[in-house]
Amino acid sequence: MSALIKITRTVEFAETDMAGIMHFSNFFRWMEACETAFYRSLDLPLISFTPGRVVGWPRVRAACEFHAPLRYGDTAEVRLAVKELRTRAVVYSITFHKLVRGRPQARPAARGEVTAVCVTSDPKTGAMTAVPFPRRVRTRLLRAAPPDRAG
Amino acid sequence: MSALIKITRTVEFAETDMAGIMHFSNFFRWMEACETAFYRSLDLPLISFTPGRVVGWPRVRAACEFHAPLRYGDTAEVRLAVKELRTRAVVYSITFHKLVRGRPQARPAARGEVTAVCVTSDPKTGAMTAVPFPRRVRTRLLRAAPPDRAG
Amino acid sequence: MSALIKITRTVEFAETDMAGIMHFSNFFRWMEACETAFYRSLDLPLISFTPGRVVGWPRVRAACEFHAPLRYGDTAEVRLAVKELRTRAVVYSITFHKLVRGRPQARPAARGEVTAVCVTSDPKTGAMTAVPFPRRVRTRLLRAAPPDRAG
Amino acid sequence: MSALIKITRTVEFAETDMAGIMHFSNFFRWMEACETAFYRSLDLPLISFTPGRVVGWPRVRAACEFHAPLRYGDTAEVRLAVKELRTRAVVYSITFHKLVRGRPQARPAARGEVTAVCVTSDPKTGAMTAVPFPRRVRTRLLRAAPPDRAG
Repeated sequence: MSALIKITRTVEFAETDMAGIMHFSNFFRWMEACETAFYRSLDLPLISFTPGRVVGWPRVRAACEFHAPLRYGDTAEVRLAVKELRTRAVVYSITFHKLVRGRPQARPAARGEVTAVCVTSDPKTGAMTAVPFPRRVRTRLLRAAPPDRAG
Repeated sequence: MSALIKITRTVEFAETDMAGIMHFSNFFRWMEACETAFYRSLDLPLISFTPGRVVGWPRVRAACEFHAPLRYGDTAEVRLAVKELRTRAVVYSITFHKLVRGRPQARPAARGEVTAVCVTSDPKTGAMTAVPFPRRVRTRLLRAAPPDRAG
Repeated sequence: MSALIKITRTVEFAETDMAGIMHFSNFFRWMEACETAFYRSLDLPLISFTPGRVVGWPRVRAACEFHAPLRYGDTAEVRLAVKELRTRAVVYSITFHKLVRGRPQARPAARGEVTAVCVTSDPKTGAMTAVPFPRRVRTRLLRAAPPDRAG
Repeated sequence: MSALIKITRTVEFAETDMAGIMHFSNFFRWMEACETAFYRSLDLPLISFTPGRVVGWPRVRAACEFHAPLRYGDTAEVRLAVKELRTRAVVYSITFHKLVRGRPQARPAARGEVTAVCVTSDPKTGAMTAVPFPRRVRTRLLRAAPPDRAG
């Protein structure tokens, strides 16, 4: 599974906790930042507001395994791959590779997975309904994701 | 200036940083939580969405002085007073008093100030316009805030 | 699996995102808050600093499934159960039940799982080593967790 | 007062709130990120741990005025200048200039000020004491800050 996009990011002071390491909840924020970069690379919005219709990609599942801590000032490469492409959902696999002397370590510091679902939400009630990916999105995701993993 | 509302709150692990104390940005979040409690006590929403109109209270200024750190597990009483009531804006004064054996210390650990402005925003463009407080809000704020500080 | 501890918590403005719902990363912070409440109920510290030795409980895995959004002002009951107790690790199962008219909904809005490992860390190097739970901790966890799930 | 350092930064989804704009508390985090970049440019650590001694720069005051909102995907240039250099404290002035077609707007979206104090803290008790800047730090800050504003 090859990475479709990579971003690098450095642990900020505000992201650390009293144990001296990046608080685990921030790994999930970094995953989302990588996902945003991916959509941007496809020229797709992460969320779009059109009159009477909001299309977004809320998560229905997020998970992360933490193998080694990241500390203040550490830089990591965050790599995103599409693990699975369903009709209404996409599963991303995301790994975090700490840079040592500018080079990413082979073994990831953390390994995450996010399942995002395409929904429209009613602007009045806020109620969400899962919908198939807009054709434009599906076409681009298919082009980015190897076909054997596309549903 | 007497407190109009008090909330108590305990420093969580995720709110600490590697210096072992609550990250300073969280004092601003606690201020907002206290402001929310105040609006709730007046039976007023912090933000309201009506068709074609969003009324909210964005901050135009926020400041805080930090006198003593709060640490993981510390509980503080957060007290809000109305310092000034203008036509379109309200200035809150907020103090943080650490509890020691269940009693708030006289000298605050921190002392903040927030200026919130009443705005309507266009749901389409998102453009914001400062407006006088809705009568219902002004009446309640006036009742809560001593008259000599109301503009 | 019965809940060992319950906390209730209300979604704050700062916890929402532009989609109008609680940002998913905050569910992980709520889990940690519930875990903290659990340790507190056992009279155990979440992290302890003794000369030459720091004992903590970093997460090695965290996951969450999101079934229904929580919105600003929504209150939820967060329930923690011990799913599995190993020699050096404990797996918590955590569910989020939105309160409707003061009563928790049967179907959870979200369902999470956290694996925490007992480690000591070298105060100089920061290197972490997994260790068996201190006897006092194990005794209390065993008393709290049904024996058939304790390893 | 000329900027000593500039960073650019883009509003992330997790930084927005339900009003559709960057939550005000994040401006304070961006200020700290800019301060970190400044220390890095001087080859100085934001916090240093030496046996028996922690030297850090906690804030004693932070303030921000918000003139225009930043929205998801907006990029801003954050500029830091040293406003005042005292024996034990430094006052930073920080402005946020939204980029429009790649160029920073003249009028800042926000304008902040942070006073940081040099302290040593006792690793056992955590008690903090304000101290004069280490000579190396003072020399570098003086070189960076115009002499007429150095105390």
